[in-house]
Amino acid sequence: MAEKRTDISELGEFGLIDHITQNFKLEQPSSVLGVGDDAALIDDTGRQTVITSDMLLEGIHFDLSYMPLKHLGFKAVAVNISDLAAMNAFPGQILVNVGLSNRFSVEAVDELYKGIETACQAYKVDLIGGDTTASASGLVISITAIGHVMPDQAVRRSGAKPNDILCVTGDLGAAYMGLQVLEREKQVYLTNPDMQPQLEEFQYIVQRQLRPEARMDIIHELRDKELVPTSMIDISDGLVSEIFHLGKQSGTGFRIYEDKIPLDKETYDTAYQFKLDPTTCALNGGEDYELLFTISQDDYEKVKDHPDIHFIGQATENKDLFDMVTKGENVVPLEAQGWNHLRA
Amino acid sequence: MAEKRTDISELGEFGLIDHITQNFKLEQPSSVLGVGDDAALIDDTGRQTVITSDMLLEGIHFDLSYMPLKHLGFKAVAVNISDLAAMNAFPGQILVNVGLSNRFSVEAVDELYKGIETACQAYKVDLIGGDTTASASGLVISITAIGHVMPDQAVRRSGAKPNDILCVTGDLGAAYMGLQVLEREKQVYLTNPDMQPQLEEFQYIVQRQLRPEARMDIIHELRDKELVPTSMIDISDGLVSEIFHLGKQSGTGFRIYEDKIPLDKETYDTAYQFKLDPTTCALNGGEDYELLFTISQDDYEKVKDHPDIHFIGQATENKDLFDMVTKGENVVPLEAQGWNHLRA
Repeated sequence: MAEKRTDISELGEFGLIDHITQNFKLEQPSSVLGVGDDAALIDDTGRQTVITSDMLLEGIHFDLSYMPLKHLGFKAVAVNISDLAAMNAFPGQILVNVGLSNRFSVEAVDELYKGIETACQAYKVDLIGGDTTASASGLVISITAIGHVMPDQAVRRSGAKPNDILCVTGDLGAAYMGLQVLEREKQVYLTNPDMQPQLEEFQYIVQRQLRPEARMDIIHELRDKELVPTSMIDISDGLVSEIFHLGKQSGTGFRIYEDKIPLDKETYDTAYQFKLDPTTCALNGGEDYELLFTISQDDYEKVKDHPDIHFIGQATENKDLFDMVTKGENVVPLEAQGWNHLRA
Repeated sequence: MAEKRTDISELGEFGLIDHITQNFKLEQPSSVLGVGDDAALIDDTGRQTVITSDMLLEGIHFDLSYMPLKHLGFKAVAVNISDLAAMNAFPGQILVNVGLSNRFSVEAVDELYKGIETACQAYKVDLIGGDTTASASGLVISITAIGHVMPDQAVRRSGAKPNDILCVTGDLGAAYMGLQVLEREKQVYLTNPDMQPQLEEFQYIVQRQLRPEARMDIIHELRDKELVPTSMIDISDGLVSEIFHLGKQSGTGFRIYEDKIPLDKETYDTAYQFKLDPTTCALNGGEDYELLFTISQDDYEKVKDHPDIHFIGQATENKDLFDMVTKGENVVPLEAQGWNHLRA
């Protein structure tokens, strides 16, 4: 059965906006006015507004040959919500700007917005505005996310103190290994288009790459436990890079312990299959969107038994010293290696 | 003297962000936290937050062969501020997302941000965040602007009542005629690269196209006069298109008078030179970024002598009737013609 393909020009710009937004309802009490006017209105009495914005460009941030549009829509929202989580804020609203070249049909746009809608429901955010426009080349997505926080609850990158405990949620390196698998299968497919991608044994890591979650669950739990981290960031570029951000902005160093770094078994096994060092993948692989934060020693009791919060090190006095105690009990300096130095 | 060209890769992503943001200081009392964390913080106690977002793509919204990067930076901010003005709000902050292909040098990025900085100063807005990323093709700019308004002062598109007076600021059609001149000079240049562009006699209309202003001056004056329009929109697509927006969202019709439509002499003369009907250019040419608003008859006295506010018609009972009384006293229906039907 041939899939239906409707040209965007059949709807026109305003028709497309109506078509896209018809499923989006305002649910947040703070959303006073949404799509359809010159701007949106938010009422924020007594709270602070938290705002973040990210742009995703085809060919740079995503590859549509293995990234389904629905997942892309979800991920574009989730990575912005993750930035709000990293401020200890609760998401409220998003604005979505999309640039579409004429190779995209209305059905393709619908898939993208289905993912955006799923994310809106998952994180309880209202779509309140944005811009839909033609693009000369490829797909462009720019999202602004707005959240809310009580003034004394906002957590910056700059608040870590020496002896604070460094915590990380979930596990690390999986999104990076998922990307390696997807890139390999793409190369196999390009060489022999009859080959079907072999992804069954890599379900978890592929999911982590294609459809990451913002850890709002952790933010809710921390609030329930009345725990405000001293500093926080989300892991988009890689653990080491984010540790440097916390340290530089807080004026502290950090020591971490290799044996405390959380790794999923699938990440571990796949790294070996690819002849990569699993620890290096966890230290420098990006896009996990887990939360990295510091807590005061006094707060340790509140989370010490949490199954998904891992205590990987501590902040130190010397602001120029960032190191790791290896499994072999050597102390090695941490280096933000970026994406080119991952070969074991 | 050869101009200096510095590759963006020499600075790196974080170096580029530091380089760009070093001149931007926070001036707004509501800007609690700006660039450099996961998100920005705004404190808005007692007021509503107004948010709008727009995306500009190379090859669709601008042509760098005649658009200087500095003007583009200014315009990208101004068009978003214009949306805040159209809500009767005062601008506070912006976030700027930029995608850059490798044909852009650090010096080119500096020009773009010089324009953004000039706009920040002109409209007293703080740059509080954004994203700078590589682009596979061309320049992408996505801006989010945040403003503030007291809850009873926000003006929507939907508040016009029958017999309200329809007002427009400034003059119309100039930005469209400026574009015609720039396109003609570009064609001349492409045919004969030794020809210099002839723009002296078109200074005003070219300026209107390249560097439009948001009419915040009018918003301040309306506040001083304690006049809250009943509905408002800014003119980005063209007068007729915006009149339809006000009418459809307010449930009213509109009648306008051709002889009341404000035209600058340069627009008028250039239209004749191009064999275009000046009224048609004013009705359907876009990008003037003037304000179109309705006021109650009771408020007419407050602005009747204002030199830059023109009373071009009124809202009517019949929500399906949009017409114009011509200079020859005929009544003709208004039609949103878009950009393809402007030939006289």
